[in-house]
Amino acid sequence: MSIMQVIKARRSIRLYKDNKVPDKDLLELIEAGTWAPSGSNIQPWYFIIVTDDHVLEQVSAFSPGLLGNPPAVIVACCDKQLAFEKGGELGRGELCVMDLCMASQNIMLMAAEKGLGTCPIKSFNGPALKKILKLPDHISPELVLSVGYPKNSPEAPLRKATTDVAYFNVWEGAQ
Amino acid sequence: MSIMQVIKARRSIRLYKDNKVPDKDLLELIEAGTWAPSGSNIQPWYFIIVTDDHVLEQVSAFSPGLLGNPPAVIVACCDKQLAFEKGGELGRGELCVMDLCMASQNIMLMAAEKGLGTCPIKSFNGPALKKILKLPDHISPELVLSVGYPKNSPEAPLRKATTDVAYFNVWEGAQ
Repeated sequence: MSIMQVIKARRSIRLYKDNKVPDKDLLELIEAGTWAPSGSNIQPWYFIIVTDDHVLEQVSAFSPGLLGNPPAVIVACCDKQLAFEKGGELGRGELCVMDLCMASQNIMLMAAEKGLGTCPIKSFNGPALKKILKLPDHISPELVLSVGYPKNSPEAPLRKATTDVAYFNVWEGAQ
Repeated sequence: MSIMQVIKARRSIRLYKDNKVPDKDLLELIEAGTWAPSGSNIQPWYFIIVTDDHVLEQVSAFSPGLLGNPPAVIVACCDKQLAFEKGGELGRGELCVMDLCMASQNIMLMAAEKGLGTCPIKSFNGPALKKILKLPDHISPELVLSVGYPKNSPEAPLRKATTDVAYFNVWEGAQ
């Protein structure tokens, strides 16, 4: 598959089969994530891969956005201490999350090529997840990715046309 | 190329050849970007593709992070009004930037497959760029991507090992 094919094949999946995803594949997704760019190459990320049914149940209970009973969940976290040490307030507040989102997109594309579905979720209770996953104070869960074999093949939601969101040189070609 | 090969081939490029990048290719990068996921599918992004030498010069003057004389720059922007209408304060403050970063990663991977180099930059003067690009008040430049043909092939900066940043179920395997 070309990269455009993979990019277009990725869907936000909200219904999963029961099959477990092999640990090896999940780790390969994380490896793809670690190859994202990061400001000053600080790689301010940690990924908690949840596959244990009991932990999954607890994470689900505090993540209303998590749908379709995924057999695995990746909780993408920022190391806020490292981000502050290397990038000050801007690093801790914004840059580390931007880095993490680029890493997460790598993860979702890698999954798409493997025939795995994913869905990025922001609707979760951060303090509860920190407690469940035993995260240290400086590790902040920023994004939850569901992962599994899709039960359905949802159509792609309508995209805005490229020409409606891209302008050359100045806004709306107002040269 | 497999997706992992593209992900690993992407480098942050800070030295470019003079050759111009065809508009068609730049628009294809944007198309790749528009296929990223976004919260509630709001697609809160706009991309200003700067190829005009005069505008490039102005953008460079206010972007200390922009290095190596790229023949093109993509200024990735959030529509803060749309993000607020659809997602409230959280949408305007954080979610739209997260969506934009996933779109930007698509753009950088698409570029890598085409043999184009990119570099994501946060070190720029936002208000100055808004003025130069004639952006409306509600359109906020969040990330600048340089784009062009790489003059060199920098080695990949060292990555943290997957096993150092990924844990199963709880932090540091503290089951």
